[in-house]
Amino acid sequence: MSSCFNGGITVSLFGESHGRGIGVVIDNLPAGEEIDLDKIAGFMARRAPKKDGTSTMRSEKDIPEIMSGLYNGKTTGTPLSAVIFNTDQHSGDYGNISHIARPAHADYTGYLRYNGANDPRGGGHFSGRLTAPLCFAGAVCGQILAHRGITTGAHIKSIKNVTDESFDPVNITAEQLEAVKSRPFPTLSEEAERGMREVIENARMSLDSVGGIVECAAVGFPAGVGSPMMDGLENIIARLVFAIPAVKGIEFGNGFGCAELFGSENNDEFALKNGGIATKTNNHGGILGGISSGMPIIFRTAFKPTPSISRPQNSVDFKDMTEQELVIKGRHDPCVVPRAVPCVESALNIALLSALNDRP
Amino acid sequence: MSSCFNGGITVSLFGESHGRGIGVVIDNLPAGEEIDLDKIAGFMARRAPKKDGTSTMRSEKDIPEIMSGLYNGKTTGTPLSAVIFNTDQHSGDYGNISHIARPAHADYTGYLRYNGANDPRGGGHFSGRLTAPLCFAGAVCGQILAHRGITTGAHIKSIKNVTDESFDPVNITAEQLEAVKSRPFPTLSEEAERGMREVIENARMSLDSVGGIVECAAVGFPAGVGSPMMDGLENIIARLVFAIPAVKGIEFGNGFGCAELFGSENNDEFALKNGGIATKTNNHGGILGGISSGMPIIFRTAFKPTPSISRPQNSVDFKDMTEQELVIKGRHDPCVVPRAVPCVESALNIALLSALNDRP
Amino acid sequence: MSSCFNGGITVSLFGESHGRGIGVVIDNLPAGEEIDLDKIAGFMARRAPKKDGTSTMRSEKDIPEIMSGLYNGKTTGTPLSAVIFNTDQHSGDYGNISHIARPAHADYTGYLRYNGANDPRGGGHFSGRLTAPLCFAGAVCGQILAHRGITTGAHIKSIKNVTDESFDPVNITAEQLEAVKSRPFPTLSEEAERGMREVIENARMSLDSVGGIVECAAVGFPAGVGSPMMDGLENIIARLVFAIPAVKGIEFGNGFGCAELFGSENNDEFALKNGGIATKTNNHGGILGGISSGMPIIFRTAFKPTPSISRPQNSVDFKDMTEQELVIKGRHDPCVVPRAVPCVESALNIALLSALNDRP
Amino acid sequence: MSSCFNGGITVSLFGESHGRGIGVVIDNLPAGEEIDLDKIAGFMARRAPKKDGTSTMRSEKDIPEIMSGLYNGKTTGTPLSAVIFNTDQHSGDYGNISHIARPAHADYTGYLRYNGANDPRGGGHFSGRLTAPLCFAGAVCGQILAHRGITTGAHIKSIKNVTDESFDPVNITAEQLEAVKSRPFPTLSEEAERGMREVIENARMSLDSVGGIVECAAVGFPAGVGSPMMDGLENIIARLVFAIPAVKGIEFGNGFGCAELFGSENNDEFALKNGGIATKTNNHGGILGGISSGMPIIFRTAFKPTPSISRPQNSVDFKDMTEQELVIKGRHDPCVVPRAVPCVESALNIALLSALNDRP
Repeated sequence: MSSCFNGGITVSLFGESHGRGIGVVIDNLPAGEEIDLDKIAGFMARRAPKKDGTSTMRSEKDIPEIMSGLYNGKTTGTPLSAVIFNTDQHSGDYGNISHIARPAHADYTGYLRYNGANDPRGGGHFSGRLTAPLCFAGAVCGQILAHRGITTGAHIKSIKNVTDESFDPVNITAEQLEAVKSRPFPTLSEEAERGMREVIENARMSLDSVGGIVECAAVGFPAGVGSPMMDGLENIIARLVFAIPAVKGIEFGNGFGCAELFGSENNDEFALKNGGIATKTNNHGGILGGISSGMPIIFRTAFKPTPSISRPQNSVDFKDMTEQELVIKGRHDPCVVPRAVPCVESALNIALLSALNDRP
Repeated sequence: MSSCFNGGITVSLFGESHGRGIGVVIDNLPAGEEIDLDKIAGFMARRAPKKDGTSTMRSEKDIPEIMSGLYNGKTTGTPLSAVIFNTDQHSGDYGNISHIARPAHADYTGYLRYNGANDPRGGGHFSGRLTAPLCFAGAVCGQILAHRGITTGAHIKSIKNVTDESFDPVNITAEQLEAVKSRPFPTLSEEAERGMREVIENARMSLDSVGGIVECAAVGFPAGVGSPMMDGLENIIARLVFAIPAVKGIEFGNGFGCAELFGSENNDEFALKNGGIATKTNNHGGILGGISSGMPIIFRTAFKPTPSISRPQNSVDFKDMTEQELVIKGRHDPCVVPRAVPCVESALNIALLSALNDRP
Repeated sequence: MSSCFNGGITVSLFGESHGRGIGVVIDNLPAGEEIDLDKIAGFMARRAPKKDGTSTMRSEKDIPEIMSGLYNGKTTGTPLSAVIFNTDQHSGDYGNISHIARPAHADYTGYLRYNGANDPRGGGHFSGRLTAPLCFAGAVCGQILAHRGITTGAHIKSIKNVTDESFDPVNITAEQLEAVKSRPFPTLSEEAERGMREVIENARMSLDSVGGIVECAAVGFPAGVGSPMMDGLENIIARLVFAIPAVKGIEFGNGFGCAELFGSENNDEFALKNGGIATKTNNHGGILGGISSGMPIIFRTAFKPTPSISRPQNSVDFKDMTEQELVIKGRHDPCVVPRAVPCVESALNIALLSALNDRP
Repeated sequence: MSSCFNGGITVSLFGESHGRGIGVVIDNLPAGEEIDLDKIAGFMARRAPKKDGTSTMRSEKDIPEIMSGLYNGKTTGTPLSAVIFNTDQHSGDYGNISHIARPAHADYTGYLRYNGANDPRGGGHFSGRLTAPLCFAGAVCGQILAHRGITTGAHIKSIKNVTDESFDPVNITAEQLEAVKSRPFPTLSEEAERGMREVIENARMSLDSVGGIVECAAVGFPAGVGSPMMDGLENIIARLVFAIPAVKGIEFGNGFGCAELFGSENNDEFALKNGGIATKTNNHGGILGGISSGMPIIFRTAFKPTPSISRPQNSVDFKDMTEQELVIKGRHDPCVVPRAVPCVESALNIALLSALNDRP
């Protein structure tokens, strides 16, 4: 397999950036779950390009047409599929495809992998556009999680050297997670937003790009779900998060920071709380032994700067085997991080619903 | 599934710390590959407890007995399985199992997940002992990779605040990867070793523990292997690495560091080199779009401090629902990182062989 | 999973009979394979309803629109997907759905499985219409097999008590397999065609239906492909064939007949032939130990009579829990077997390409 | 994969006939299920060779040693594994392996599949001995099914031309299924037993072998379990049944017989019965649309005659490419069918528990 996640649910992505359409098939969903299409549109709008300078000016409508799996507004339990037709395509003369590898893109590796037969237009199947059906799937799963009292959300933790506050790993609430979704620029603090917008605008003006970190959380997820070893929550969240182009790292709880602590500092002591069991701190990020502890699930994921920059770059024509200077034309995001926020949520939503389904 | 990785090869782990035995079944291996059992023993010895104070004094022989899949010294191509019998067990009175959750362990989450039926002795299936069969599988896969000119290796990048040098992401060689394997304490620099040993010894003396970071690399892996989206190299390496207990994060190439760079700094320009294509820098860690670029594959993974510390800790008896003070007795590693080095290599070996097998 | 086959290739079916569309995603296809869309249309036309009285008069265009995975007439290697939009729908008043279980249909079992939330119109996801995207996938796989010198084909072995000749299990040729595809009614003998048409017409006139048997074969498939135990050729062919509604049995080689033979009669002796190894007889159907022997692969599959008949039947309203007389209205095939022939070929094509891909 | 079934549960088989041991890992079992080891031994004894002339005289103890997954007599929920050590091996001079293909065996196909590296001794991984761990897994799953009120059982329907009565597909009871298990020769009628024993003895005396048909059933399985398309009950039962060596066909309900009926004869009308819904007849074998109907699940499976016969046979040395006369020495069953009965039950048990687990 390559573009198909299979666990408690199956998510099969398809499509190329400039082909007829992109889409997804979601199999093994619970039946009879109400799905609010307006909310899905709202979710996906958070991923859509903004007109505020932070992303490409290319206009994508990206309205998913549901092909199957929804009847009378509810999931049928049989495969739910949706297609987003590609309409706004600027591919130029397709006969004259460049073979100069764009640095940090998959042009060269994809060419090798598919013996030159893959669709190179706009990145083809490697395009960030494939995150649109991922978000569709994530939005569907998120609504089903909500029916079970589970809320997920994410914010931009940093863009380059500008950092936002962090989620409170112990006390983060569903309300806080929802609140950040309604912000046009998903940070917790307005000061961070201002700083990040400035960094992005400066990058855009200097024909450059910047990366950043997204912090994501879930609350209300029941304790005792997941598995040790290969299909733990961390394993499947990581597997799904790395399906988002530009992700280069993931860490749970205090993550890489734990490597610098003593055990006595890092261990989260258990205590009774409101008649249940909780930990006083949440360095473990809500997952112990691959299984949920009942504490908020917290992780962060690192995004590299947009590979497409307008500055001239040195590269190689991998067909002619000659060194070439490359100038990438066209529209591109100076920073993908704001649009990546719902993508990370989607990976989490799919993983959590999969784990809930996967219990014997 | 829970303890079974399925890709181009299938790795099915089983066993509990104090049960009859632990082991692994590896399915879909290529047939006719010579396997050197002495080398496997050498590989696994790197994971075994050391007598130098850095790890538990518990003596584990951990000699895998091969049940199937090897004939005349070669893989048969049918499932290769091995069992490590548990011999040195100190479980005490099994009827008197504690239900006080050890902080940062899976006692409580495992109890919920398995309705109290899982084997709690010594951590059961959650025990670090399960990394022994993982290392067996990793050693087998590593030998098959070696037949294809591929070398993997790892070193301790840091223990608490003491850091080792880094692998040179562009010029790292097979010889360097092999060299670190022969060191009793797997760092690149002797100075780092001294500092790390001191930190570990201090932690041990103060009844505490420390964590760290392992850096892992592969050279000789052909370009063009892997897949976009769900089964990219990053996805499957991450899925396998998180099967190692105590891992809390993974990052590829420059990892989280990429979030602070401009695209113009982070992009790795392509150039001709020795008649082939290479990148001048290797921030991408040898993987673009989930597919190998031909550059060294590099990643780092964070390990939390050993959860078992001898200091009194506050916790909860999850059966009685009472708060309790907990004192963990018995032998435990003040730092798992030195022994984790071959485990991380194993995860990589399994992932890379799986990806090689998974090509249509 | 439920509607997703995952092996060396992944085939994910979706859709409901009266929903927006039905379709398929095929993942892990080899890249760069030329696909002739006219041939696909020809393949699918063999499944389409006929105007000759043997099948429903409902007009289905069933033209698949390819969404992705094809570029410049060749497979890209990334997921190939196609949608068939539903246009000719006669669902009547959807608010007034019957809960009287049609005998031999999945109305009742589907209702239980999906808690009443599945789409019941026209059979929903259980509809025979889902064999259209299955045939699309089968046609694509068949063309890729053809590039490797492999030909598959099938004919009607029997309708009720009228039987056709059998394929010669030793000497069947690609030409013979192709020849039967061009016949409007896929039998080997014209006499069988006449008798079968008569049986079908009689059933139609008496408001009844009939079943039959399809015999399917592959030639040119290389020896040594497949696996023992769970993923043998028989296992995966059977798994795929039972995805076709109305199939109740499958047998390979001489099948159930082998149970009445002595070993000395049933064993196929090996001999040299044209410089290679062949068996003198082919009771084993080209598969030994789950692996191809190089002899023609032969199997037969039994189809029950169309469940939808116009005669009154006794049944139960599973919502009201009352016994009811049921009269099924609308158009339906008196015999699905002629249209099932390419469906069986499709199951075989998918299985064989999957097995070819699945070699380490 | 090859020897690993993955569905709601995972069953990973390993081992070669003359290697160190054979065994199985069962993953994703429900936790806390009591397992009676004596009953498992009893189940497996039904598969063990008999001293009554119907099977090989080779003495197999085949006592599975449980390695993991069982604690205080209950499943832990983590992988349950068992090894059967091979003790009674008569492999002769291993350096002098024959390359003369035994007709109807996998010697030749296995040699091709594994490039000659597979273990050929005693059939290696293709040996019927691999059904011992399959039966272990089937026995475990059967006990868990029993906890849910589900009973499975099987009998010999025919040996060559001698037929037993059939299960009553509507009224078959758990008591009847249990009763046949206690018979030394699992037929419903004693007359059939006598006839079959005679046929087998005659075959043995004439250095020949015979095949037969096993009929298998489940009662108490809840309605509404299973899935349409790829993972229906028929699909997964078939996939598992074909893992048993010598199986050449499977049919559900009236199976191939349905092809000769009118729809009005074959359709099973629904009726109210004991406050629930039932069908008056059970031609559908308890499965409609891949989903259980609540009626008894019934299927039959055809076994070819034991390939190993003592008569001289013509064959080919596939290494020398010469035609050779072959005389198979050693002990072998004149008929595998009596011992196959619990194997077929095991396939069903695994499939049913998998389907129960696989519900979202």
